[in-house]
Amino acid sequence: MVAAVVDLNADLGESLGVWRIGDDGAMLEMVSSANIACGFHGGDPATLWETCQAAARADVVIGAQVSYPDLLGFGRRFLDIAPKDLTAAVVYQVGALDAIARCMGSRVRYVKAHGALYHALAEHDRQADSFAQAVADFDPRLPVVHYGGAITAKAETHGLRLVAEAYADRAYTSQGTLVPRSEPGAVLTDPRAIAEQATRFAQEGKAESICLHGDTPGAVASARAVRAALAASGVAIRPFL
Amino acid sequence: MVAAVVDLNADLGESLGVWRIGDDGAMLEMVSSANIACGFHGGDPATLWETCQAAARADVVIGAQVSYPDLLGFGRRFLDIAPKDLTAAVVYQVGALDAIARCMGSRVRYVKAHGALYHALAEHDRQADSFAQAVADFDPRLPVVHYGGAITAKAETHGLRLVAEAYADRAYTSQGTLVPRSEPGAVLTDPRAIAEQATRFAQEGKAESICLHGDTPGAVASARAVRAALAASGVAIRPFL
Amino acid sequence: MVAAVVDLNADLGESLGVWRIGDDGAMLEMVSSANIACGFHGGDPATLWETCQAAARADVVIGAQVSYPDLLGFGRRFLDIAPKDLTAAVVYQVGALDAIARCMGSRVRYVKAHGALYHALAEHDRQADSFAQAVADFDPRLPVVHYGGAITAKAETHGLRLVAEAYADRAYTSQGTLVPRSEPGAVLTDPRAIAEQATRFAQEGKAESICLHGDTPGAVASARAVRAALAASGVAIRPFL
Amino acid sequence: MVAAVVDLNADLGESLGVWRIGDDGAMLEMVSSANIACGFHGGDPATLWETCQAAARADVVIGAQVSYPDLLGFGRRFLDIAPKDLTAAVVYQVGALDAIARCMGSRVRYVKAHGALYHALAEHDRQADSFAQAVADFDPRLPVVHYGGAITAKAETHGLRLVAEAYADRAYTSQGTLVPRSEPGAVLTDPRAIAEQATRFAQEGKAESICLHGDTPGAVASARAVRAALAASGVAIRPFL
Repeated sequence: MVAAVVDLNADLGESLGVWRIGDDGAMLEMVSSANIACGFHGGDPATLWETCQAAARADVVIGAQVSYPDLLGFGRRFLDIAPKDLTAAVVYQVGALDAIARCMGSRVRYVKAHGALYHALAEHDRQADSFAQAVADFDPRLPVVHYGGAITAKAETHGLRLVAEAYADRAYTSQGTLVPRSEPGAVLTDPRAIAEQATRFAQEGKAESICLHGDTPGAVASARAVRAALAASGVAIRPFL
Repeated sequence: MVAAVVDLNADLGESLGVWRIGDDGAMLEMVSSANIACGFHGGDPATLWETCQAAARADVVIGAQVSYPDLLGFGRRFLDIAPKDLTAAVVYQVGALDAIARCMGSRVRYVKAHGALYHALAEHDRQADSFAQAVADFDPRLPVVHYGGAITAKAETHGLRLVAEAYADRAYTSQGTLVPRSEPGAVLTDPRAIAEQATRFAQEGKAESICLHGDTPGAVASARAVRAALAASGVAIRPFL
Repeated sequence: MVAAVVDLNADLGESLGVWRIGDDGAMLEMVSSANIACGFHGGDPATLWETCQAAARADVVIGAQVSYPDLLGFGRRFLDIAPKDLTAAVVYQVGALDAIARCMGSRVRYVKAHGALYHALAEHDRQADSFAQAVADFDPRLPVVHYGGAITAKAETHGLRLVAEAYADRAYTSQGTLVPRSEPGAVLTDPRAIAEQATRFAQEGKAESICLHGDTPGAVASARAVRAALAASGVAIRPFL
Repeated sequence: MVAAVVDLNADLGESLGVWRIGDDGAMLEMVSSANIACGFHGGDPATLWETCQAAARADVVIGAQVSYPDLLGFGRRFLDIAPKDLTAAVVYQVGALDAIARCMGSRVRYVKAHGALYHALAEHDRQADSFAQAVADFDPRLPVVHYGGAITAKAETHGLRLVAEAYADRAYTSQGTLVPRSEPGAVLTDPRAIAEQATRFAQEGKAESICLHGDTPGAVASARAVRAALAASGVAIRPFL
């Protein structure tokens, strides 16, 4: 019998200068993959430097977490960006982070969109295409981490592997889409419920990678609960690469 | 008899969104090396995309023109940036541009500082060291283009090649340093004087690379005059690589 | 018989640092009202300073041209900004420009949205409401310049005067809405056609203020043609205040 | 016998979007004057909105805390900004905050520089002059809060009142200047020592206003200790206006 395996990822490196967010040190001990910000929604170069260094030391896989250019909105607001601007912005961000990761002996090994761009990849054909084009132009061997929608076909068109992802702490509709943050109950806060959902996703093979949030109160406690529940269920935590 | 050889470089890709600056198309026909902005003093990702594409098509060598983070000041104002912030900012910029250049089948092949950072490399030991550290961390085979000063020793310390540069259209003091822009006569505007100075620098071996400005009125005319004068003097124009 | 009267407005102060756009000096001689940028889509503080100074000297009425925070997109991309963020951003911009205008002995006397925000005021109820709320909070005596749509009811709700505006050089659909810039023929370029449309709008009372673009090639020539055509038709040019 | 009186001020409104800094709610109960950020080193418009609203409700005097344009450096890095750029930037910031404060029924009643600009006012004649010029152009009745140096003469030249300030938690040299943050012991952390220094400054009349930091661990505890010590010594806390 083959035991279940799942990757755990979290958003890291989202601080900006003096403004700190998330407990990156603790989360690095929880995950197998780190979605590191690239400066467009958070993450000044010095923060990326420290985060890549810490990830490399912890032997955690580094992914580029790319965003609309929108520091004030933390990348959470839809931006009607032109296709060529989006493609260039994605390559710019992945390249910037990759350079820093390489200084630490690591490199960017996958790409994940952040915030409103993440949602646009599911719903906005043109932006999904520009995004996939960018990743393919940079390096077609890099997988894209997403739950699906428009990006599914676009990833295939551009020859990219799509890694199926689910959120441990986000409520899902019966259609399998994320309940918007603006709605009540969109974010699970009970560590037990979060751990239970993560384990179920892993066991049912619904996700190759499960996203843990690192910037919410109780994030670390939830992450510990998830790891304990996976271990108890015999699910191994491993990068999806 | 060995004929003299010199590289011609110019700053390109410094437009920002709707705001255009410089006649990049014309200048690409004039130079052998393009110092392309990296987004911190100019050059949004889409502009860098177009500029790298055009440079690759014109078979012009691409260099990363890195800057302090200062769009409003076009990188021309000294910023007392901390060493680790400068190192991370330089790697970030070089990596971002390199990624875009690679999408065009090219890559970043040297690094040059822009504006106030260029001057700081001559006069500010700590910043010169952070800059050299960044280039060495990214790729120690990349040369740094500069006229000298503090960066000379720092480049050596970090194992970097320094490419001697002179400005065709900037006045020099008797000590060989640039006359500050704030002083009268700092910028030559007569194409004949510019061409004469460039030719002299090349023939006397004072510079491996000569910088032509692309963002001044008459920039293209001056560049043409320089090329004609070099040709008339038997100086070949070739990348310094 | 009462002669027709119309206001002419144009977007000014949209340069950013070294990047210049538009011939503000020439346009100030053409218009009775200047929509001056406020720094969010263009217009660094020093540019606003110079522009307000020139407008005050030319005795041209100053209006605040507010935008989404989006320098790279020049405010031309829809941003799904939250209501409270938009209200605060509008007040911030109007106040910043008003302070500079007051240093010149003038002040902000109306508000106009720029780019994608201008379009959102027609089509996006919630953003139109947040915008009108902001103007009313700052000073309910300031008129809003717009062609209509959602903002019409919101202006009334918040006790604001709406000044009917039409574009001299933009094509209109049969429903009276602007043809999107992305469609062919959206922007008129023939000075005669532009002048004819402007005169017709003024004579038919379809607009209290007519917008002239200052950042297109031939902008000044078109503006001159409009002024000549209005004069020939006996239409006086006067601020709408 | 006249009892001693002193103003207590603190920096507020320095959060940026999702990134929160300082316990503004608690500090508003501690101070008589709030130095509210203006967006250039922190403080997006929505944050300024909330902070002005809270300050107005708490009946705390609002001052504009202006900065170099440097979000990534939190305004703590010297910037060699041109005089006209600095003057315009100061007026822009004060006007933006004043507009928001007026929406809350309050207004900006003094100006204080932040970070590296604060230090430049002591040491950099030209920047001190540009700053004083800006305040005088905006409203010469607004006092400038500072400890002295170059700004002393410039404030007098421009007809501005200078309010003498001291830091409760910063070490001073024997010459009365601040020990730079980069040196050990620059920042006092013991609430008792902080309270003792504040009380001494107030009793000796060395400061009309004492600055409490709100963004350090233990900030609120220190502020409480200062208030208790002042009360025990019979020093009243009142705005300096």
